[in-house]
Parts: sequence; structure tokens; C-alpha cells
Amino acid sequence: MGELRVRSALVTGANRGIGLGFVRHLLALPNPPEWVFAGCRDPKGHCSKLALKHPNLVMLTDPASIKAAAASVGERLKGSGLNLLINNAGIVRANKLDNETLKDMSEVYMTNTIAPLLLSQVMLSPARQPGDPGSGLSCNKAAIVNISSTAGSIQDLYLWHYGQAVSYHRCGAALNMLTRCQSMGYREHGILCIAFHPGWVKTDMGGDFEDKTRVTVDESVGGMLKVLSNLSDKDSGSFLDWEGKVMAW
Amino acid sequence: MGELRVRSALVTGANRGIGLGFVRHLLALPNPPEWVFAGCRDPKGHCSKLALKHPNLVMLTDPASIKAAAASVGERLKGSGLNLLINNAGIVRANKLDNETLKDMSEVYMTNTIAPLLLSQVMLSPARQPGDPGSGLSCNKAAIVNISSTAGSIQDLYLWHYGQAVSYHRCGAALNMLTRCQSMGYREHGILCIAFHPGWVKTDMGGDFEDKTRVTVDESVGGMLKVLSNLSDKDSGSFLDWEGKVMAW
Repeated sequence: MGELRVRSALVTGANRGIGLGFVRHLLALPNPPEWVFAGCRDPKGHCSKLALKHPNLVMLTDPASIKAAAASVGERLKGSGLNLLINNAGIVRANKLDNETLKDMSEVYMTNTIAPLLLSQVMLSPARQPGDPGSGLSCNKAAIVNISSTAGSIQDLYLWHYGQAVSYHRCGAALNMLTRCQSMGYREHGILCIAFHPGWVKTDMGGDFEDKTRVTVDESVGGMLKVLSNLSDKDSGSFLDWEGKVMAW
Repeated sequence: MGELRVRSALVTGANRGIGLGFVRHLLALPNPPEWVFAGCRDPKGHCSKLALKHPNLVMLTDPASIKAAAASVGERLKGSGLNLLINNAGIVRANKLDNETLKDMSEVYMTNTIAPLLLSQVMLSPARQPGDPGSGLSCNKAAIVNISSTAGSIQDLYLWHYGQAVSYHRCGAALNMLTRCQSMGYREHGILCIAFHPGWVKTDMGGDFEDKTRVTVDESVGGMLKVLSNLSDKDSGSFLDWEGKVMAW
């Protein structure tokens, strides 16, 4: 099994749930990143406590300014390029077909689907110089990880019966499509791209339902990091679950 | 083979290409609709000439006002409900991963994915009273037809090499997901929902490429209307091409 060993990582939506789990697990790796950047809306949330103990954790607290975040990252990395971008931030509105609104649809698309591409554009640019073509793709080199859901699987339409959430489903499908587009467009730049279904994780967003298929944040994040450490060229553009199983589009 | 016989139909993006083709074909049916509503941005385009000859053709020329369109439709139908909504309007921006912008991504999503749901909400509401459960679903009763594309197929990523158009691909996937959501949510209201890949049609949007797989507007629209006339319960939520072939998500 490979070992995940990245010099730098950026996780969005890092104040709680899966995002916070990624930050904790990355900081606890046998060889932790030199820099972990955490996108957090609330500068006083869980991440701020972690940052007191970990000088290599940098909080990015202005979610509206991708430019400011890029400057902060660039200053630390001194042009060497981000290795791992984990697009985890996502919102859900519990709207049904009949009460879905323009405002909510636009906001969910902005956060869940537009922002991941805008972040990819600025955060991975230094790494997008063609590397050694023989070295292949890996998460230790450069990777975009889009946290999607099988709620975005058009075939499965996972959890539809728990409240529809039409925009969330649509944006999941669009994010999966983005992952496929990125895998095609960025392959020549040496960037591996993957979409993950993290499972139905016990988080605030996942809601207060009892179900035997639900997993803890640690199980989900631990599983995804294990999967990430073993990915190579052939996996780029895939949609996998936290245990590495291929999901249906 | 069934005969398409609808009392009323609404087609968006009706001034040219596939939308105009639908309006023409509907007006030329052996039993044409009592009312054909045509959403057109330009009140002086091709549809205005057709309207001179066909008093049953009503142009809806304010694309920003779904409310105004709903009032115009309601006035003619006198509460009997629209039978067939063809969400055909769509835009494309020839952006690549690196130069995709917030503005373009938002606009494409608004036109191609948000508007079809908003239209469905207002246009099919009178028809959404539970009908005779034994009568089943059909386009003659009530149907939403979303004109998508295999460019929205995450598996196929059709025409990617002709210029990426990242937003168009993503919104196609999201529109396919909407179709699936609508088919689940509207089944009990007696509304059939379907997504179509019209083929790579010889239109302005399709671009100026020579390719033996390209089809004319008449071939595409004629094919889709033939497919529509034969759909029933089991087909709702499908993604078909203009010849009736099932497409991959």
C-alpha cells in the first residue's frame, strides 16, 4: 500500500464534518504536510483550536475571496505549487420540486459546483507545468479531490426519499461531470482528478436519521485517505466511494 | 404506433434550430394542438412569420418573466392545464477549464437548468391533479420533455474535443438529473418526464463542423415526436436519443 505524503493540501469546508476530519487526519499522518490550508467561514470554529497546536495549519477565512486565499497559499508555498486540493465545501437546501427557488438553486450551484472549478483554476496553476511524463499521476504529485455524493448519481438518486433536495442532487451530478472534464483537461498537466462518495456520514448535514449504513467521519475520511494513497493514472476521472468501490454516474 | 395528439404545447427557444422545428412539426400534425406556445427572445424572428399563418400559435416574448408567460398560457387554456412542455432553450459558452468564469457558469446554469424547473413549476400545475390512476402516463396527457444532450452524459462526454464548453457539459448532467428527479416527484401527478439527446443537429449552436453523424432539424425533431407518441409509464425518467435509443448517464 502506498503512503500519502504531500507537501501541501487545501481543504474547503474545514470547520466541521468531513472537512474537519480531513484536516485532523492530514495533520496526524506519519509524514504530515508542511502546510495544511483550511477554508473555514467561521474563524472561531474548531479549526482555530487546532491551529493553536499546529503551526503548519493555515486558516483561510474569507470564503468570498478566492484571490485572497490564493495569495495566502502562494506566500507559504513560494511558487512550488499545491499538491492536494480537496473540494469538500457544500451546502444543501431541503427544497422539493415544487418549492425550489431561483435564489436557492443559484446558491447551491455556486458553492457546490462553481467554486470547486474556480479554486482549481487558481490553486493548482503552478503545479500545472508538464512534469516528467514517465512519472505518472498520483495524489502525492498533484490531485483534485471533489467530495460529491451518490446523491449526485443520476442512476442511483441516493436518499431521494429523505426530502428530495433537488438542487443538491443536480449539483452533485454537475460536480461529477466537472471531475470527468478536469480529468480529461488536466491529465497532460500531471493532475489526478477524482470524485468521492464519502458515504452517508454522521454529520450535521447528513441529518438526524438512524440507519445502519451510516458511517462516522473517521471511518469515511480514513477510508478516503487510504484510497487516495493508492490512486494512479488509470483512476483519474473515476467516481469512488470511501472504500474505493466504483460508483455509477 | 401511437398518434401524438395534444391540446396544448409550449416550446422554449423557439425562434430557430430545434425549437423552431418543434413548433413547425406540431403545427403540421394531422391533429395539431389547439394552442402552441412559443418562447422566443426575438419577437421579430421566424416564429412571428409562422404566427401570421397560424392563429393557434402564441408567442411568449419576455423570457425573463415566467409569470407573464404563465398568465398568457392560463388565459388561453382556461384552467385546463398544459399537456406538453418542451424545455428546449439552451445556451453554450465555448469556455475551457482555464478560462471558465463565474458569470458564464451562472448564466449557462440559469438558462439550461434552473429555468426548466421554474417553468415546470408554473406551467404544469393545473395538470398536476391526480388523474385516473389506471390511465397511465403519456405525452398526450401531460409531459415534460427536457432537451439535453449526450454532451451531458458523464460517461460519454460527447464532443469534448470540439472545445470543452465545460459549463454546457455540467448543466447537461444537471438537467438529466432534474429529469430523473421530476420523473420521481411527478409520477403520482400523472406527468411523464423524459430527457432527449437530439443528435448533433445542423443548427447555429451545433457549429460549422462537417461530420457524417450530423442530422438535420427535421430528422431530429421528426424522430423525437415519433418517440414521444409511443412513450408510456415505463419510459418516464429515461434519457433517449432522437431515435429512441437509451443513452448512458
